[in-house]
Amino acid sequence: MTDRPNTPTLDRVTVPSDLKALDDRQLATLADELRQEVVSAVSETGGHLGSSLGVVELTVALHAVFNTPHDKIVWDVGHQCYPHKVLTGRRDRIRTLRQEGGLSGFTKRAESDYDPFGAAHSSTSISAALGFATARDLGQPTGDAIAVIGDGSISAGMAYEAMNNAGAEGRRLFVILNDNEMSIAPPVGAMSKYLSSLYSSPAATMAEGFESALPGPLRDHARRARQLVTGLSGGAGTLFEELGFQYIGPIDGHDMDQLLSVLRTAKVRATGPVLIHACTVKGKGYAPAEGSDDKYHGVAKFDVSTGTQKKSRPNAPSYTKVFGESLVKEAALDPRIVGITAAMPSGTGMDIFGKAYPKQMFDVGIAEQHAVTFAAGLAATCMKPFCAIYSSFLQRGYDQIVHDVALQNLPVRFAVDRAGLVGADGPTHAGAFDIGYLAALPNMVVMAAADEVELMHMVATAAAYDDGPIAFRYPRGEGEGMEMPERGEVLEIGKGRIVQSGTDVALLSFGAHLGEVRKAARMLEAQDVSVTIADARFAKPLDMVMIRQLMKSHDAVITVEQGSVGGFGAMVLQALAQEGMLMEAQLRTMTLPDRFIDQAAPDAMYADAGLSAVDIAATAMEAAGLEATKTPIQAQ
Amino acid sequence: MTDRPNTPTLDRVTVPSDLKALDDRQLATLADELRQEVVSAVSETGGHLGSSLGVVELTVALHAVFNTPHDKIVWDVGHQCYPHKVLTGRRDRIRTLRQEGGLSGFTKRAESDYDPFGAAHSSTSISAALGFATARDLGQPTGDAIAVIGDGSISAGMAYEAMNNAGAEGRRLFVILNDNEMSIAPPVGAMSKYLSSLYSSPAATMAEGFESALPGPLRDHARRARQLVTGLSGGAGTLFEELGFQYIGPIDGHDMDQLLSVLRTAKVRATGPVLIHACTVKGKGYAPAEGSDDKYHGVAKFDVSTGTQKKSRPNAPSYTKVFGESLVKEAALDPRIVGITAAMPSGTGMDIFGKAYPKQMFDVGIAEQHAVTFAAGLAATCMKPFCAIYSSFLQRGYDQIVHDVALQNLPVRFAVDRAGLVGADGPTHAGAFDIGYLAALPNMVVMAAADEVELMHMVATAAAYDDGPIAFRYPRGEGEGMEMPERGEVLEIGKGRIVQSGTDVALLSFGAHLGEVRKAARMLEAQDVSVTIADARFAKPLDMVMIRQLMKSHDAVITVEQGSVGGFGAMVLQALAQEGMLMEAQLRTMTLPDRFIDQAAPDAMYADAGLSAVDIAATAMEAAGLEATKTPIQAQ
Repeated sequence: MTDRPNTPTLDRVTVPSDLKALDDRQLATLADELRQEVVSAVSETGGHLGSSLGVVELTVALHAVFNTPHDKIVWDVGHQCYPHKVLTGRRDRIRTLRQEGGLSGFTKRAESDYDPFGAAHSSTSISAALGFATARDLGQPTGDAIAVIGDGSISAGMAYEAMNNAGAEGRRLFVILNDNEMSIAPPVGAMSKYLSSLYSSPAATMAEGFESALPGPLRDHARRARQLVTGLSGGAGTLFEELGFQYIGPIDGHDMDQLLSVLRTAKVRATGPVLIHACTVKGKGYAPAEGSDDKYHGVAKFDVSTGTQKKSRPNAPSYTKVFGESLVKEAALDPRIVGITAAMPSGTGMDIFGKAYPKQMFDVGIAEQHAVTFAAGLAATCMKPFCAIYSSFLQRGYDQIVHDVALQNLPVRFAVDRAGLVGADGPTHAGAFDIGYLAALPNMVVMAAADEVELMHMVATAAAYDDGPIAFRYPRGEGEGMEMPERGEVLEIGKGRIVQSGTDVALLSFGAHLGEVRKAARMLEAQDVSVTIADARFAKPLDMVMIRQLMKSHDAVITVEQGSVGGFGAMVLQALAQEGMLMEAQLRTMTLPDRFIDQAAPDAMYADAGLSAVDIAATAMEAAGLEATKTPIQAQ
Repeated sequence: MTDRPNTPTLDRVTVPSDLKALDDRQLATLADELRQEVVSAVSETGGHLGSSLGVVELTVALHAVFNTPHDKIVWDVGHQCYPHKVLTGRRDRIRTLRQEGGLSGFTKRAESDYDPFGAAHSSTSISAALGFATARDLGQPTGDAIAVIGDGSISAGMAYEAMNNAGAEGRRLFVILNDNEMSIAPPVGAMSKYLSSLYSSPAATMAEGFESALPGPLRDHARRARQLVTGLSGGAGTLFEELGFQYIGPIDGHDMDQLLSVLRTAKVRATGPVLIHACTVKGKGYAPAEGSDDKYHGVAKFDVSTGTQKKSRPNAPSYTKVFGESLVKEAALDPRIVGITAAMPSGTGMDIFGKAYPKQMFDVGIAEQHAVTFAAGLAATCMKPFCAIYSSFLQRGYDQIVHDVALQNLPVRFAVDRAGLVGADGPTHAGAFDIGYLAALPNMVVMAAADEVELMHMVATAAAYDDGPIAFRYPRGEGEGMEMPERGEVLEIGKGRIVQSGTDVALLSFGAHLGEVRKAARMLEAQDVSVTIADARFAKPLDMVMIRQLMKSHDAVITVEQGSVGGFGAMVLQALAQEGMLMEAQLRTMTLPDRFIDQAAPDAMYADAGLSAVDIAATAMEAAGLEATKTPIQAQ
């Protein structure tokens, strides 16, 4: 193929099979263009820039060597998939990334045949890829399976379980360890130290066959490389070899020649599971990203030439920040308070606490199972652990919450951030199920914060409460901009509050939808409906005194929560059924619907979910048997 | 101290501090007596004999060297704790093990100060022990933390997460790897192969200091031992050393001198995390156990002299067996069916399937997270994976069910064994929460089998259903003894069945409590109450046609399920609330109560839970506003 000057190579690639027409030099050129395209697109959309820039060459090389979609590339977490999306028929939509109606910020099966397995939570790729490889060996028409996993993700227990199984099974399977010495925060844990040690080891000799297939001496960034060794070893990659993998690496993940050679050789020679250790730089090739502390892990829209992010000035502190600062205040009064995060110190606000109390903050890595039981161990010695984990990630520690915390009634405090719908990160990050999966557990206290002042109260309450486990949930994003007290109040366990009193309908809110509930009340009042607003505060134990009163003195009671069925509304219904009180008033439970909600602005997602103020007001009218007498119900 | 002949040494030990008065020879004698005591006790109670016999010497040595309860021994799983219970003030109750009102078959905080952390699910001990060690370093009055973990348990991701964290933290911490090359089934996975390789490696030299502290050359069973090495290494224990642990072993876990020497030395010298690799024999010292395939993992009462177990002859096949056999039948018709178990091939009936279709059955080890996503990968290639995991263990894979299966709507079939209360294994093994945590998920179909024929239908239904994930739950134990059809019928999704028609009250059963519901109906009929019995079959999607009809044509509708709040009853209430139908009849939802239920016979546990036929009948009478007109309601 001859070059057509003036025509960018990228314009000649619509799907990966177009790469077969390019020579190695053109592939390198393509990678450079692809990097610019990704920077340009993300400058308009915001997103996970640094991770995507780190795998540009790897993406090109994988698609050039393997035959997707027959061969399956499984991107772990999936947030590094932007270059992959550009090369797999989605270039025309790449500027819709993470927008309502646009491309997902992660891999997504429904979006493309080139996304064989969706992701967003970490450390799933090796398990899924082993599934593909196994199905192939059982006769399904699928080709090679390639998991691409970061050094942070591979340190999670799930990835270890998968390697342990894959290494023993011995099937042909490729794991590309994309090692940039970063997950979101710098990685922690022994595995991370181990990987670093591989860089600094003296160069090892490579076995023949494989070495001769490589292009001469390995390049600058490849500090060391070893062959598809099957026998004993005592150096780099030993840990992976002990798990049954053939280890190749480390190689330079930005050197196209090296990548192509290694992948081509591995493709020809691999008979069992192979781990290729590629060293990359997060944010590679875009100076503002490479120079940033978090390597532009997640960015807002930005100016390409300067790298300046167009972050809108917040109107109020985020719930996350309020949590972190409140915890610092509590710890000043009680030295037994310790904080635990699973690799999300800044995402959870635990960095604020860690800065104030470095010896009392523990980042355990991507290890939610361990985080929960480690907290339980601390609680068993009368420490006061706060375990801050996003709602959707806390699902990873569910058995530990049941078995190690609730069953033993140990006072672990769960700070459940990112509860409810979360915006651009979409359905994988939605905190939809925690109310139900926590409130079902004996001994557990479950709270939700209606606003940031309530969150402050709940941190104080959790610090004071020592009779068993307690959880409090709060959303992503900014609070209401309220004036903050000096310190949170300790709330009475199981006691809600009446926000305003009325006579016709009662809106019983649990958590941060209170603002929307207030709006609904205004709409109802515009229809001459007298509205009570109550903030339940607790899904468990329920404030049955208040709830009975609401039932007895209103025509309709509407529960509202930012969560799925089986949560707060269900708890209210079952408690009232138990007491034979379901006929005292018309009841409706408003929850997230029985489907996953695609990314959009949070308000738009809640409207999609049928949880807007208009929806709440309309439900209340219907339940109370009222018809709009004035204008139709609408946003005020 | 002089020996008093004729007085067993064991009689002189009530609590571990009594061991300090014994010399090493007496400790060895004590171990022999302790073994006999455990065999004798378990012959009367049944229980986890093999595991306990394997750690007799280790238990004595740990308590002799460390100072419990100030030092904390955390037994992983906890089923090997019988000798520990005998030595820690519970000898007088050891013959009540696993009985109603008796000692738990696991460690349990509420039972003794010597049980600092309860367990029953595997692989939690290192996390908890690290919590204790951390609290000590932060000033809590607690001593050394010692986790004792088996080779099966240490292969789970959670244990790896804990080692990864502990190795990096560098705190003084002891992990005893109790390596018997068995978990319940022979262990699988690369870690297991790795551990085996340590035995067969050539003997390594031991670093000075430590070697000189040991009593001469190591004994027969210790094929190899190494020192508290801090530097580089290339042999045994490398994997642990790469994770930041100092490795000692393998040592002979039945040689008291060796155990005492190693533990004493380690106790004096350890500054960071230490892993002591002790090789033991499951069932050690009791010939019938050592000679048994499963090493007497879980046994019924037995005759000590012959080892013959007094297992009662079952009246009907177990649900587990029916599942395994039904799956074999389905696989005969569809070669895409594959089976997955997480280290429980016989417990789940997957061994039956694996015998018939060895290439289609995968035992992935103690790795529920991986099991679920591996199944999702298989489903993504149009295979038909059946993932058979106990209800309480499936909690370990919850995030993977949400994120990898439900969100992607992949047709993974979940065979949820041990749903509901399980008897002697007690609250840790209760399958209480699965209905709620599964039914809350979009795309998920949730069934429960009312009897073993229904289970057969549900296996057939799951095999036929390819539109998304589907789960079916069924209890531990025997079925009803029904005649089995040749093959299961494919049920209509979301369609329940009317078992008998009446006019006053409707009992709406979900799952295996149908037998108890029938008994309740007989009691009600004896009071001249006309009873409808319905079997919902599906918690999701609900049969709303049937449920509306029940609401419209009865005074009261009672839902009954073997699960917690937030499950089937909650789904029914929320669906009826949505339709404004809660006032059509009095509703009650009968579930497990808001507390954990201690071990007893399953019937006794359900009675304790308020779910006996008498409870159901009484609830129906109350809901319908009826009073017993004849004799009081009672069991027939």
